[in-house]
Amino acid sequence: MSYHVSRVEREIKDENELKSILERGKYGVIGLARNNEPYVVTLNYGYDKDENALFFHCGKEGQKIDFIKSNPQACVTIIEDDGFNSESCEHSYKSIVLRGKIQLINNPDEVDRRIRLMISQLEKKNTEHFLAKLRTGNKSYDNLQMLKLTIESISGKARQKSAAEKKAVSRLQNVTD
Amino acid sequence: MSYHVSRVEREIKDENELKSILERGKYGVIGLARNNEPYVVTLNYGYDKDENALFFHCGKEGQKIDFIKSNPQACVTIIEDDGFNSESCEHSYKSIVLRGKIQLINNPDEVDRRIRLMISQLEKKNTEHFLAKLRTGNKSYDNLQMLKLTIESISGKARQKSAAEKKAVSRLQNVTD
Repeated sequence: MSYHVSRVEREIKDENELKSILERGKYGVIGLARNNEPYVVTLNYGYDKDENALFFHCGKEGQKIDFIKSNPQACVTIIEDDGFNSESCEHSYKSIVLRGKIQLINNPDEVDRRIRLMISQLEKKNTEHFLAKLRTGNKSYDNLQMLKLTIESISGKARQKSAAEKKAVSRLQNVTD
Repeated sequence: MSYHVSRVEREIKDENELKSILERGKYGVIGLARNNEPYVVTLNYGYDKDENALFFHCGKEGQKIDFIKSNPQACVTIIEDDGFNSESCEHSYKSIVLRGKIQLINNPDEVDRRIRLMISQLEKKNTEHFLAKLRTGNKSYDNLQMLKLTIESISGKARQKSAAEKKAVSRLQNVTD
């Protein structure tokens, strides 16, 4: 059975808009399932547009690794929280939901390449400093692996502020300026 | 097998702190599983401390409802995002993970009671206005149901800003003041 966004006016259909949410985001909530038991974990990510994949870093053991080894299927959400609006009693947001399979990456060269991509995207200010630490710190990646989520499907929803809500925010900004 | 937070210095052990994150939060990401397929959905919530339960409102049909009917087990996360720190190349946050079962509530009196709790918690400014709309709007709740998640377990993690990061934020605030 296929599902559709129930409030069609909230669906984000523009593929560029969906991808720009992926590009702006810094972390995602990953939903996993093992023996039909759900689990969620929140991790920072890097996004490789060409490979249509997200990369996460994590240790070599633990609950999420056991879930992934048991079942690589994942459902991930990335949320832009624009706050609750008292004018309308509604929350403003943009969010995307991705589905795909997660693969564990342990090859040190690939781990190195993927973690560099992630740091370059997350760390905008001291990028070179933290990349240099990787190169000079005798990092062997013994205790680190990367997760690669290859995106199979993507959908998005948004509830934008109304004119009245924007006006209220603008009033508030004038008061605090 | 039972799991523990891998970085013990990040674990939130204080029950009051865990509950205060629940009280401050406005939305959670709910992880579900059907036939071992994971799914995540983000919803606003109300928190009933006495019943140790979260309440969400939603329509009577759709993907999440089908997942819950197939398997009521849920894993929910609530995140306080304190931003990425360029000083340390790390994200600051507080987050909790809850596990429990979700029950569908369709009885109109109970739906009414639960949605009032939720509005009272989310809508701090125009609370009475929106509660009054419920009473006067011929709302029959025909198209609405509530989800009740009874919390069976709760755990929390935090990565707080270091002194250097706080100093950097303070410097930034002085510049923009």
